[in-house]
Amino acid sequence: MLVELDEARSVALGVLGNVGTPQVHAELQAEVLLEAELRGLPSHGLLRLPRIVERVRNGVADPRATGRHAWRGEALLDVDGEGGFGPVVACAAIEPVRKRAKRLGVAVAAIRNSGHLGAIGWYAEEIARGGQLAIVLSTSEALVHPWGGRKAMIGTNPIAIGVPVEPEPFVLDMATGVISMGKVHDYANRGQPLEPGWALDAEGNPTTDAAAARDGAIAPFGDAKGYGLALGFELLVASLTASALGTDVTGTLDSTFPATKGDVIVVLEPHGRSASALSAYLDAVRACPPIREGEAVTVPGDRSRQRRARNLARGLEIPDAIWSRLRDLADSSLES
Amino acid sequence: MLVELDEARSVALGVLGNVGTPQVHAELQAEVLLEAELRGLPSHGLLRLPRIVERVRNGVADPRATGRHAWRGEALLDVDGEGGFGPVVACAAIEPVRKRAKRLGVAVAAIRNSGHLGAIGWYAEEIARGGQLAIVLSTSEALVHPWGGRKAMIGTNPIAIGVPVEPEPFVLDMATGVISMGKVHDYANRGQPLEPGWALDAEGNPTTDAAAARDGAIAPFGDAKGYGLALGFELLVASLTASALGTDVTGTLDSTFPATKGDVIVVLEPHGRSASALSAYLDAVRACPPIREGEAVTVPGDRSRQRRARNLARGLEIPDAIWSRLRDLADSSLES
Repeated sequence: MLVELDEARSVALGVLGNVGTPQVHAELQAEVLLEAELRGLPSHGLLRLPRIVERVRNGVADPRATGRHAWRGEALLDVDGEGGFGPVVACAAIEPVRKRAKRLGVAVAAIRNSGHLGAIGWYAEEIARGGQLAIVLSTSEALVHPWGGRKAMIGTNPIAIGVPVEPEPFVLDMATGVISMGKVHDYANRGQPLEPGWALDAEGNPTTDAAAARDGAIAPFGDAKGYGLALGFELLVASLTASALGTDVTGTLDSTFPATKGDVIVVLEPHGRSASALSAYLDAVRACPPIREGEAVTVPGDRSRQRRARNLARGLEIPDAIWSRLRDLADSSLES
Repeated sequence: MLVELDEARSVALGVLGNVGTPQVHAELQAEVLLEAELRGLPSHGLLRLPRIVERVRNGVADPRATGRHAWRGEALLDVDGEGGFGPVVACAAIEPVRKRAKRLGVAVAAIRNSGHLGAIGWYAEEIARGGQLAIVLSTSEALVHPWGGRKAMIGTNPIAIGVPVEPEPFVLDMATGVISMGKVHDYANRGQPLEPGWALDAEGNPTTDAAAARDGAIAPFGDAKGYGLALGFELLVASLTASALGTDVTGTLDSTFPATKGDVIVVLEPHGRSASALSAYLDAVRACPPIREGEAVTVPGDRSRQRRARNLARGLEIPDAIWSRLRDLADSSLES
């Protein structure tokens, strides 16, 4: 069903408030989920809210925590998220890191023990809007198989890049799996086959059956190169955050285990080409003659912004079952 | 022909000495090229030497320059390479950046106006051997087409990641093109067809004819995601180094224009999972049951190390034409 943004926000705030989330934390967590909905990323949207609530109820997430900070050198902020919500812990870390980057040229937040960040492009965009460069890395549950291997052993480890560009920041936000497990479930629900090479079944055999792939492994994007990147990010993040590795990562797809993944946010102060020079280059790329007539070349972020504008005007399309579950959770204050 | 490493080094030093390269610069430049040969990357090996010499003779490279340094904040070193050799300028920048990273947690070198770095994995490995994490980005001539576009507008923009791991560092070194232009030339020379989807011809039409692809464009690796990464790196590097963008980049494939690409080297101080914990994870990945029996899963850097050991024992395989050209250049001290 179509839900207006304000109504969706109000329900999300109610759901979060019901498990004791301070208002300012609830607003931040809700905004990150709603922005994902606006941008057409429902797998990182309101769908996540019931699990966040269950995690609080199970004592593996703390809606009040903002994280404990320790500088390891002036430019590297070590953050123990203390089980806080991902967006709350990340934003509390980004603020001092941005100030340090302004002064020092670069600074980094290395975050462990915090909840799912949501779509990491959101943080890259925030940082870029403030005039700085961002590289955001996050690890996650092992869903991706090594290139040439049969078992899921690597996270879908996304990378986001944010660059100040006129009139809107350049934002890349991509996972290193060829497809997300959320989309595999979508294909399975619709009985639609996957493309060859996208996934393995539980025995590690290639399959196009989406239902079988749910218990198997996703391929890295871009074959051996994407595998190398996913693995490199897994090591980099663990080396900086003491996060868990591979199949030891828990806590973003379940409601019962502590979150053991890690997040790394690098903020850099630009001093080279201006935002308008970069913008001119991106416009030239967009004007590149297309392979297929009528299908103009786009730049990462273009389509997401189009979807956002459409959804702002039209409302959010939220599956009935999820919306009804959220309304129940928002109304449950008296019982819980 | 097979050439012993010491003989190849001696000839390379002779070639570089003949254009006035100080001994210590010649040794560094030669080592980076020879290591690429050892690791089975001839496109980044001795093949490059005649061009380096021509660039010196044409006044667009300066074998004595080490770069002018200016700290933009305590953690960000801005480097004007002053036309120096890539390895010389990069190593002169890496030394102080490593010290700052040790103290501050992270530091960055942003380099413009310097020659081709060679295989950037070399720098990532050096930094990781010293116990620090490295991310190395470099831009290059526009050889890659935007996803869905017909023209080459983006560099093959490689990324290297180095992580201290026992017993040997983890080193990823990959370009963001699906294949290198060097390999396209190899295919053309052997009359071998390219795989579908790898390249476009000069008119921007898909082709498997390697000869036609030489004047066209290479596809980004991993479709839209690899395109996004390549473009993101192009912007990040330009934003930090004031390097040229897209088709304005010159100076690593020609002998006549200044080098206008940029290089960014990020050094981070690890404080999370230990090198031995990372190593245990990598061993578990290597032990993943393989898709094809007998083809064990490898980790980036494994094959390169095997090739290095073999080539150290066997000698370097250098095409006759290149070896004879290098010997001429080494012998030409009296005429030049």
